[in-house]
Amino acid sequence: MSDLPKRVTIHEEGPREGFQIEPGPIATERKIALIDALSETGLHRIQVCSFVNPKRVPGWADAEAVVRGMRPHEGVEHTALWLNEKGLERAIALRERLHLEGNISTTTSETFMRKNTQRGFEENERVQRGQIALYRQHGIAVERGGVMSAFGCNYEGDIPVAGVLEAVQSLMRMAADEGVTLSTISLADTMGWATPASIRRVVGAVRERWPEQRLNLHLHDTRGLGIANAVAGMEMGVDQFDASVAGLGGCPFAKLSGAAGNVCTEDLAFLCEEMGIETGIDLERLIEAARLAEDVVGHPLPGKVMRGGSLREKRRALAGAAD
Amino acid sequence: MSDLPKRVTIHEEGPREGFQIEPGPIATERKIALIDALSETGLHRIQVCSFVNPKRVPGWADAEAVVRGMRPHEGVEHTALWLNEKGLERAIALRERLHLEGNISTTTSETFMRKNTQRGFEENERVQRGQIALYRQHGIAVERGGVMSAFGCNYEGDIPVAGVLEAVQSLMRMAADEGVTLSTISLADTMGWATPASIRRVVGAVRERWPEQRLNLHLHDTRGLGIANAVAGMEMGVDQFDASVAGLGGCPFAKLSGAAGNVCTEDLAFLCEEMGIETGIDLERLIEAARLAEDVVGHPLPGKVMRGGSLREKRRALAGAAD
Repeated sequence: MSDLPKRVTIHEEGPREGFQIEPGPIATERKIALIDALSETGLHRIQVCSFVNPKRVPGWADAEAVVRGMRPHEGVEHTALWLNEKGLERAIALRERLHLEGNISTTTSETFMRKNTQRGFEENERVQRGQIALYRQHGIAVERGGVMSAFGCNYEGDIPVAGVLEAVQSLMRMAADEGVTLSTISLADTMGWATPASIRRVVGAVRERWPEQRLNLHLHDTRGLGIANAVAGMEMGVDQFDASVAGLGGCPFAKLSGAAGNVCTEDLAFLCEEMGIETGIDLERLIEAARLAEDVVGHPLPGKVMRGGSLREKRRALAGAAD
Repeated sequence: MSDLPKRVTIHEEGPREGFQIEPGPIATERKIALIDALSETGLHRIQVCSFVNPKRVPGWADAEAVVRGMRPHEGVEHTALWLNEKGLERAIALRERLHLEGNISTTTSETFMRKNTQRGFEENERVQRGQIALYRQHGIAVERGGVMSAFGCNYEGDIPVAGVLEAVQSLMRMAADEGVTLSTISLADTMGWATPASIRRVVGAVRERWPEQRLNLHLHDTRGLGIANAVAGMEMGVDQFDASVAGLGGCPFAKLSGAAGNVCTEDLAFLCEEMGIETGIDLERLIEAARLAEDVVGHPLPGKVMRGGSLREKRRALAGAAD
């Protein structure tokens, strides 16, 4: 286990991921309450909303109100998601309250890309270069390059490692051509195909080719392997993960049966705490935020540690009893 | 990943674990329907009921009726749990329909043992030797020695590796003294304290001391690390696991918030299938059984693959679409 990182950074995506799929309306002030609670946990980066078409994603029609209502917090970057120029303009209008992270993305699967964005690889490259130019124009640093469906795809099936390397290479080439450096390459298991074995294979190949490149894993827990995949990633030296508090975005209810969220933030933070890996997170506060998330959406969420409790608390209680 | 076993055996414990904690009554024929469905999945061993005091565990007041009603199935051993001589006698009365597996057990934590059974280590050793004699008298083979709370304990906290080695040693000594050989030593994470790191540490130490001894892991998913812990176990060469279909025994509902089941059978079987490890299980049938389990208990269960679906099915659909 000697390859384990000493410190892991977790990027919280629960509010953005979760509130976009909840079937019922959630009051703006409840969304703000959860974001404010998360800002107090020691998390350094929280994706708080999505600037997307409110007709397509009614759950984020109140994105502006949420950003205006949330409390800024020293040391916490509140980020947002946008998918086009119009969304970016909405984010820029609130830039004194948001950390605008420029990013470019591609996928290993052209079929998925066409379904998702009506673009092929070539068209996507043009769009991404346009994004970089736009970021430059607005003084936004391009930080992250993302590869979607890096471990498998519902439209193309298993993805050869060469396909992932090609996708990463295309991001690197675009960035280099446009004179920017990607601080992070994020490999996303968008549809929950990854296993510890494929994480090792893919991350190993990417690290061998670009040994100095910082990697992030974005793992959906569609088939219950999320935490095991995170462990495999850490053992390959990955020290940055996206995650969702309480497993927001996923739901054990039949009516949301297709939904599977990111790996659960507090379960991942618990794993790190118990394995002696620093995260900077106050796990007890994070567990409280997870319970609040469940209360806000009004139905059970998949997180486990918020039910089982941390072991640090148990040890503290035992030490108290022994005094 | 070269230490991974080629084949893993999964012992199903869902019916016994699950039905004992469900708050509402479940009809005998529904319990039987689930057991019959499980018998068709390729699982070789299914623990179907618990012969315990019906006043203490009303959910198993119908144990006899369940055993009489279930269909025998070639190649499937239906087992049962008992905690004392009275329970054993009830099991023996149905021995033509049950595989009676003799077992002895201890724990790393004398405090937990006293809470659980009102016995200390010394008294427990006397009781276990009595069990062996009783098994011999009834012609029941003693197969398994179990160590409870092998990775941590809510009453004693972290467990030193030496404590686990001592517990295993005590089982070995009792067995040797009584002239029996334990085919399996089962290490149980009874209260959900294990992490991949402690699995490696404890399993590594036990294997170093008894390299030829077959090990089983019984992992509760109290804090979401169950599957990751199973992977760590497999990487240490463990090839036998207890598991619960659909995660029966655990529940995401607040009213059962303390409950955390074993690692989920179909999630574990999915992991194995995707990692190229044989289990002999028909995953699609097992997923159907998991959905039946959820229907039988009438509320969501924690299993993930029953919602996400297997990847083999997805690949088959893709291959069909490409024809």
